[in-house]
Amino acid sequence: MNEQTRERLRLAAVELFSRKGFHAVGIRELADHAGIRTATLYNYMSGKEDLLVDIMRSVMDPLGDAAREALGEHADPCEQLVALVEMHVWVHGGRHRSTLVSDTEVRSLGPVARKEMGILRDDYERLWRGVVARGVAAGVFEVDDVAIATTGLLTLATGVAHWYRLDGPVRLAELCALQADLALGLVRARGTSGPVRRADVHVGPPRQVLSPDPAL
Amino acid sequence: MNEQTRERLRLAAVELFSRKGFHAVGIRELADHAGIRTATLYNYMSGKEDLLVDIMRSVMDPLGDAAREALGEHADPCEQLVALVEMHVWVHGGRHRSTLVSDTEVRSLGPVARKEMGILRDDYERLWRGVVARGVAAGVFEVDDVAIATTGLLTLATGVAHWYRLDGPVRLAELCALQADLALGLVRARGTSGPVRRADVHVGPPRQVLSPDPAL
Repeated sequence: MNEQTRERLRLAAVELFSRKGFHAVGIRELADHAGIRTATLYNYMSGKEDLLVDIMRSVMDPLGDAAREALGEHADPCEQLVALVEMHVWVHGGRHRSTLVSDTEVRSLGPVARKEMGILRDDYERLWRGVVARGVAAGVFEVDDVAIATTGLLTLATGVAHWYRLDGPVRLAELCALQADLALGLVRARGTSGPVRRADVHVGPPRQVLSPDPAL
Repeated sequence: MNEQTRERLRLAAVELFSRKGFHAVGIRELADHAGIRTATLYNYMSGKEDLLVDIMRSVMDPLGDAAREALGEHADPCEQLVALVEMHVWVHGGRHRSTLVSDTEVRSLGPVARKEMGILRDDYERLWRGVVARGVAAGVFEVDDVAIATTGLLTLATGVAHWYRLDGPVRLAELCALQADLALGLVRARGTSGPVRRADVHVGPPRQVLSPDPAL
């Protein structure tokens, strides 16, 4: 096995799955796109699903680790929310193809992989929900339903994978700040002097989880 | 041609496309699912894309019409935003399958249909952006970037198709109000006495565009 070949195969899978959808992509097409023979491809995976799971893990594992670290570094709910939103947007805006696949192709997984990915997603969502719940308990956030607000925050931040492009007019770090500001609005974050904006929150630039890459 | 057969075919397409993705569904599978012969199917369409375009139009046309009517009935930006969010959530929560297909399968359209659907979507998004821009101009909303806030609002309201189910614990009308409240938060809607909540906005129950149907 060859690491460069593996990388070409991964890139081909990200490009094809994101453009056409997992089910529309054939094994031969994957091999052609990666510049390898179909028979060689089976040295690197047992089936297409392996590549899909690999893409999903490559997004979810670093996100989960970084989220746990970020929550350890900040105690204030506004700071925690800003940190989570900005790292999530950094990854989804910076790697819109693999995050789009990760976000939309859970339905294409078999039961075993679906269960594994479900656990990763549930753990990650629980971290976000904890921040919202603590903010509400502290009287800093005001939402009627913690679970629905959390789903809304994740939907909002994940959505950038569907429309943001690195070569567009908005820089990625700027997008992170704009989305964090929308998130603070969504939960009606309030300090002693009124509504909290992104600029009021003392969190440095977005945690740069995974380097941005338009091919990924 | 037979209207009942057409309806069975439409239902089969919504169910299969939403569960497996457009490209994963074969013509024979569609015919089997609708209980008709493959040859008969071609009396009703020239190809799979016809069914996809039909599903998209069935969502986008009523939404666009209802949005224009709603904006004609209300002048206040908070009322307009609540009306738009609630009718959008009513449709996306009430018909999660066809809205999911409409939301995720634009990539599967050929150039002609993609252009037609693009125009419908752009027109619809323009209505939303107008509300946000008027709210900002009136000093009622506070957002840094009108386009990004509008995309955020649409992402948030469309997202319910991905997770909300009619047979779950939250009633659809309640979901509409909860999502409208999040939307007012996102744009930091403010009245003379502080932040505006859904309960402060004098708009009746959600406009019931398209009847809810778990099969659609």
